[in-house]
Amino acid sequence: MSATPTAETSKSTAPDWKAICAAHERIAPHIHRTPVLTSASLDQMAGVKLFFKCENLQKTGSFKIRGATNTVFSLTAEEVTRGVVTHSSGNHAAALAYAARKRGARAWIVMPSNAPPVKVTAVEGYGGQITFCEPTASARAEAAARIERETGAVMVHPYDDDRIIAGQATAAKELLEEIADLDALLAPVSGGGLLSGTALAAKHIRPGIRVTGCEPEKADDAYRSMTTGRLQTIEKSDTIADGLRAGLAPRTFAILRRNVDAIVLVSEEEIISAMKMVWERMKILIEPSSAVPVAPLLRRGGLAALGLPAKKPGDVPRIGIILSGGNVDLAALPFSQ
Amino acid sequence: MSATPTAETSKSTAPDWKAICAAHERIAPHIHRTPVLTSASLDQMAGVKLFFKCENLQKTGSFKIRGATNTVFSLTAEEVTRGVVTHSSGNHAAALAYAARKRGARAWIVMPSNAPPVKVTAVEGYGGQITFCEPTASARAEAAARIERETGAVMVHPYDDDRIIAGQATAAKELLEEIADLDALLAPVSGGGLLSGTALAAKHIRPGIRVTGCEPEKADDAYRSMTTGRLQTIEKSDTIADGLRAGLAPRTFAILRRNVDAIVLVSEEEIISAMKMVWERMKILIEPSSAVPVAPLLRRGGLAALGLPAKKPGDVPRIGIILSGGNVDLAALPFSQ
Repeated sequence: MSATPTAETSKSTAPDWKAICAAHERIAPHIHRTPVLTSASLDQMAGVKLFFKCENLQKTGSFKIRGATNTVFSLTAEEVTRGVVTHSSGNHAAALAYAARKRGARAWIVMPSNAPPVKVTAVEGYGGQITFCEPTASARAEAAARIERETGAVMVHPYDDDRIIAGQATAAKELLEEIADLDALLAPVSGGGLLSGTALAAKHIRPGIRVTGCEPEKADDAYRSMTTGRLQTIEKSDTIADGLRAGLAPRTFAILRRNVDAIVLVSEEEIISAMKMVWERMKILIEPSSAVPVAPLLRRGGLAALGLPAKKPGDVPRIGIILSGGNVDLAALPFSQ
Repeated sequence: MSATPTAETSKSTAPDWKAICAAHERIAPHIHRTPVLTSASLDQMAGVKLFFKCENLQKTGSFKIRGATNTVFSLTAEEVTRGVVTHSSGNHAAALAYAARKRGARAWIVMPSNAPPVKVTAVEGYGGQITFCEPTASARAEAAARIERETGAVMVHPYDDDRIIAGQATAAKELLEEIADLDALLAPVSGGGLLSGTALAAKHIRPGIRVTGCEPEKADDAYRSMTTGRLQTIEKSDTIADGLRAGLAPRTFAILRRNVDAIVLVSEEEIISAMKMVWERMKILIEPSSAVPVAPLLRRGGLAALGLPAKKPGDVPRIGIILSGGNVDLAALPFSQ
């Protein structure tokens, strides 16, 4: 298994159910089994029954610890001595630094210069060694590749890696183990690691479930890729959903095409409004990226756009949402003042 | 049982274990069994193992729904037709309005003019009929008494009522059912309803447990009452912990004297700092009142002041904290900007 596959090989790979279960066993001692919360007032607004898988309450504040832990604890002893390197806007960076420290490995982290200070602080707190770069996809990849060459560290790509995808899949696995009869599952999409894992786990456990990715209009490469059938790129985005500024990889695009039913776009205003609603009604901190899959449900007629399977009259659709993370800068909230 | 007892009768009453269990059965269908969360980083800062009973995630955003529901669902059919009346700075008001609507009763609510807008909006949302008054203890009581006379509504005092105290006791009951081996339990104290119930339940389930009330320096009547042995009053406070501006009643003072081991005071700065720490590290919204029992643990040498029972060398104290509520105004946060 390579962390830097070519488009040709990556198209045909995806972690199977056995790999997802192995990942879950591997990471279980190191992560939280996060709670599934519900909200009567959000149910009422959306006209459905919602189940929120709270990865914002996860260790390091996001689901990213799942894939990072699976990968770091899959490394050979020799690889551990070399350390790990990655590029990330924040949550994968913090997760990798945390997991590496747990396994006694060094972690080199390339972060874009526009990463939120709170995420930079977290990486530093976990002992990661940070290199800043321009906030573009190519600058990130180049800086990480350079460190890989110079240090011999093992590249742990934030999503273009089956071990990462298998780890991220465990959030949906846990949710469906707890709430078996979901009609649909929504998750945000950026590079596609979480959405790939979510779709693989969900379709295995419950083949009839509808899996929808939710994406900011300002970083709509997954939407464009799925609608055109060809991988579209994104070089730069300033969406407030700072965790969703990356683009799909060939590997994740291939998985999404086979397993995801739709991608829905949301505006910046919808993201902020959904974030505020979750804070106020659910009393939990979510970062803007987590609000992205909540936003379509609060939209007038949003339910229809999700293309849910028909239910018996009077039956309310049961929808799972992966709340991906909760790392926000309290001194720079979009709705204060 | 009277909702407006004299000092003489109230001193000798307190809900017994049977009343607390009956309350729990009565309210269970209407409330959340809130989760108990932990935080490795707060544990590390405090040097103890903490268990947070998350009443901020409770229906209406605070523990107050427990006592209000127990009381409203204890009313006779005739009392229900008369409706209920109370005075409250916010959370009891919202809880009573919510519980009354659930039982089909009207609710008249007296609120101080300095109640947070978010709490006023909540009461309105639950159909409560609000009367504003000056933010003093006497003005609140007078306005509620007047409405009681004029409408014939049943007074449901926010804490000077055994049915309220029995309801509030169920939070600690749930916590100790889930985490049996706590050494100490911390809760905020204002009028003393929550702390009374917490102490009654905790000392019944686990007689050796240490129960400590935590109070703002700027509303220190419980501290003064306990140290002087005589009920001290408070007419007005502007502590940021807006839920803790009321004073003890003879009934709650009598219960605290028999069942609470200590009262600890915290400064305004400590409240804000503890609140921020919980938001950042635990990713949950708590209101300032909830931060009051967290604050002493983050203080240098704070642990010693709690007077915890001695443990075997290497054993870490296990401390429960009641996070009382999560109703905050997102447009007026103390740490934004």
